[in-house]
Amino acid sequence: MNNEKAIVVFSGGQDSTTCLFWAQKKFQEVIALSFDYNQKHKLELQCAKNICQKYNFEHHILDLALLNQLAANSLTRSDIEVDKEPPKKGLPNSFVDGRNMLFLTFAAIFAKQRGIKHIITGVSQSDYSGYPDCRDTFIKSINVTLNLAMDYEFVIHTPLMWLNKEETWKMAYDLGVLDIIKEETLTCYNGIKGDGCGQCPACNLRNKGYLDFKKTNNL
Amino acid sequence: MNNEKAIVVFSGGQDSTTCLFWAQKKFQEVIALSFDYNQKHKLELQCAKNICQKYNFEHHILDLALLNQLAANSLTRSDIEVDKEPPKKGLPNSFVDGRNMLFLTFAAIFAKQRGIKHIITGVSQSDYSGYPDCRDTFIKSINVTLNLAMDYEFVIHTPLMWLNKEETWKMAYDLGVLDIIKEETLTCYNGIKGDGCGQCPACNLRNKGYLDFKKTNNL
Repeated sequence: MNNEKAIVVFSGGQDSTTCLFWAQKKFQEVIALSFDYNQKHKLELQCAKNICQKYNFEHHILDLALLNQLAANSLTRSDIEVDKEPPKKGLPNSFVDGRNMLFLTFAAIFAKQRGIKHIITGVSQSDYSGYPDCRDTFIKSINVTLNLAMDYEFVIHTPLMWLNKEETWKMAYDLGVLDIIKEETLTCYNGIKGDGCGQCPACNLRNKGYLDFKKTNNL
Repeated sequence: MNNEKAIVVFSGGQDSTTCLFWAQKKFQEVIALSFDYNQKHKLELQCAKNICQKYNFEHHILDLALLNQLAANSLTRSDIEVDKEPPKKGLPNSFVDGRNMLFLTFAAIFAKQRGIKHIITGVSQSDYSGYPDCRDTFIKSINVTLNLAMDYEFVIHTPLMWLNKEETWKMAYDLGVLDIIKEETLTCYNGIKGDGCGQCPACNLRNKGYLDFKKTNNL
C-alpha cells in the first residue's frame, strides 16, 4: 500500500478496469479519469460511470470531442467499419492518432493541479494490435516529455504492459474482481457489454484470453 | 525553398508571427493553427485572424477550452493578476501547465491527417521566463514522443530557440516584416496590441528588445 494518490486513465473496458482495481490495492486514493471523444458506443462511458458509482471511485469525464474532429477513424465514426483483420501494411483503421498521448497529457495536467504524481494506464505491448501508442517505448518517452513540460515528477505505471489477455484475466482473478471485469466492462468494438459480439478483433482477443485463463488455471 | 508544407503554431504574438513569415520563405505552403482556450484577451485571437486574412495564410482555430478548466493561471483567468516579477522559487503564475505540449500534440494530429510533417513553433529558451515547455530539451523530447505515438516522422522547427528578443526583431527586419510585427501583433499580458501597455513582463521584454535592435543596427 502506497501512501499516495493516483489517477487511472479509465475507459470502462477490461484493461483499464483491471488497472482501477489494481490501483486500489496499491494507492491510498484512486481517481478515475475518462474521456468523451464521441465514441461510437456511448455505452462505453456508461459502463465507466456505473463501475465508479458502484465501487465508489471518484470519477471525472473530460470532453475531448476535438479529437474526433481531427482524427477520422473507425472507433469514432459510424460510417467507417472496423477492420476484421489487422492490415498487412500500415496502421489498423481503429487507430485514433494521438489518442493515448492526449489522454496521458490531460491526465497529467489534471494530476498536477491536485498534487498527484502517479498516473496509471492499461496499455499493453503484448497484445499489440499495431497501435504505436501502446508500446513501452512510447510510454517511457511521454513520461520524460511530461516531466520536462511541467517540471514535475510524474510516474506512469503500466501494470499490463507485458501481460497478454490470459494473464490480465489472471490478474483480475487474483484481485478478486473477475466477475466484475467479465460482466460489467465493455471492450467490444460493436458496443456490447460483457462477452460482447464475439466477432470483432477486441472480442476475439478478450474471449480467447478468458478461455486460456480458465484452462491454464483449471477453473 | 523547401518543396513541402508546414504547420505553424500561431498565437498572433511577436514570436509566432515572425515564425509564420519565416516559414513562408522556407516552405511551399504554410498553414497557421491557433488555439482558443479562453485567453483573457480575445484580441489575441483576433490579431491572429487578421494577420492570416490580410497576408493570405490558411488559418484554423481549434477549441481548447478544456485547458482553461484544468489549469488555472493568470493568462486565462481574469481573477488572477500576472506576476510583475518572476518568482524566486517555482513557476510564474502565467505558466499554463501543459500548454505547449497540447498545442504541439494537436498540431501533430492535424498535420498527420494532411500528410504534413513539418511543425513550427516560436518557443525560445534564450528569453526563458521560467516556462519549462519553452526549453530545447522539452521540444526534442516531445518530437521523439510524437513520432513514437503516431509512427510518423514529424520534424519540429524552432527558429527562435536560441535568439533573444533583439535578434528576433532583427529576423523580422531581415524578412521584411518589421512593421507588421511591430504594429499588428499582440504580446502584452494586458491585451494591448502593438507596443502594448509597456508595464507587464511581456512588454518589457519586447520593448527592450526593440530598442536594442534599433541601437545595434543604427536604425
